Amino acid sequence: MGEELKLFGVWGSPFSRRIEIALKIKGVEYEYLEEDIFHNKSALLLKYNPVHKKIPVLVHNGKPIAESQVILEYIDETWNDNPILPRDPYKRAMARFWAKFIDEKCVPAIWKSFMSGGPEREKANEEACELLSTLEGELKGKKFFGGETVGFVDIVASFIGHWVGPFQEAVGVDLLTEDKFPMLCKWAEEFKNCPVIKENLPPRDKILAFFKAQLEMLTSFYKNRV
Amino acid sequence: MGEELKLFGVWGSPFSRRIEIALKIKGVEYEYLEEDIFHNKSALLLKYNPVHKKIPVLVHNGKPIAESQVILEYIDETWNDNPILPRDPYKRAMARFWAKFIDEKCVPAIWKSFMSGGPEREKANEEACELLSTLEGELKGKKFFGGETVGFVDIVASFIGHWVGPFQEAVGVDLLTEDKFPMLCKWAEEFKNCPVIKENLPPRDKILAFFKAQLEMLTSFYKNRV
Repeated sequence: MGEELKLFGVWGSPFSRRIEIALKIKGVEYEYLEEDIFHNKSALLLKYNPVHKKIPVLVHNGKPIAESQVILEYIDETWNDNPILPRDPYKRAMARFWAKFIDEKCVPAIWKSFMSGGPEREKANEEACELLSTLEGELKGKKFFGGETVGFVDIVASFIGHWVGPFQEAVGVDLLTEDKFPMLCKWAEEFKNCPVIKENLPPRDKILAFFKAQLEMLTSFYKNRV
Repeated sequence: MGEELKLFGVWGSPFSRRIEIALKIKGVEYEYLEEDIFHNKSALLLKYNPVHKKIPVLVHNGKPIAESQVILEYIDETWNDNPILPRDPYKRAMARFWAKFIDEKCVPAIWKSFMSGGPEREKANEEACELLSTLEGELKGKKFFGGETVGFVDIVASFIGHWVGPFQEAVGVDLLTEDKFPMLCKWAEEFKNCPVIKENLPPRDKILAFFKAQLEMLTSFYKNRV
């Protein structure tokens, strides 16, 4: 069957990188289309994701899917080899619980601690630390969130494993450090050492340079948003 | 096998009612435990959902699951009869997309429009209307979000179908009306006329009385939260 698979993404986005990692784990070929999300969204992106107008969007044989966790589940159900989610319903539920926790609690809290200033930053930092402690606890006795191999939660957590480091360096905040979160830091190293992960993450220095350049714009964007 | 299935919920909560509806659709027996979520959370609830300390929690043979959408997926994967999610991966992805849209976009926007006052309410109301229009569009040509029968998205949308009416009456806001959203209103009627739904929703007047009594507390809670 002639499959057509297109991914609309942004090179530096942890959300579209999730999809690339999953497709590489599955060994599925796809065409990648880089979007200029800040200045000039393509007509195709707006057509395929009219509700959120955001990346990532995966288009499979002409049918679009948006929202990175929804796309990950679709990929896992469509190409069954090398499963991303566990097969057992209870373990699947736990994976979904933690992925949700990361996207709905950890990511916004970390972002807030980077983007806020003054006394608000301290409070935001405390909140982010508390959430990361909960996540750290979930790694106890495990190599990956998925157990012995990288799975759904690890892929979703790649923002924490790869982006938080250069972001905190750019902003000058000490959030994720080895003394505070030894297991999360160990996990991040193990995760990034997996060949399929290593080859599909943007280089750290490129993230750092990009984030430094965009910091002012991002700060004002974030303030208007919250 | 002697199954043990317990649900921790609150009678007036649309989130724990989702789980009751799903279990009734599946024809699965369960024990229901009412929580006093505002004043006195039980030791068991705190034990079973230490991360969020919220209802609903489903405990299956001693193993707890939290987060209503995660629980719905677990139920559908554990008891296969009378599926809640479609079997086709693309249709499943669409169901997950719209369920996420309801919980992450519509519910907070509707809540904000009820809880805010003055000029802020007008803006919040406009935002909520825009989101509801998008949802209205999704019903075009369909009886239920799930097609001919009630499914995942309908269950998640029950807040809109059943709770928004008495809430807007209590607050004095016209948000979901037949002239603005004819398809959503028709869907709400069809949805509530299904026997399994009708028998598992709290009475409208009970919701209205409860919400009126709690309005002051909820407003101050909401203001401190946003």
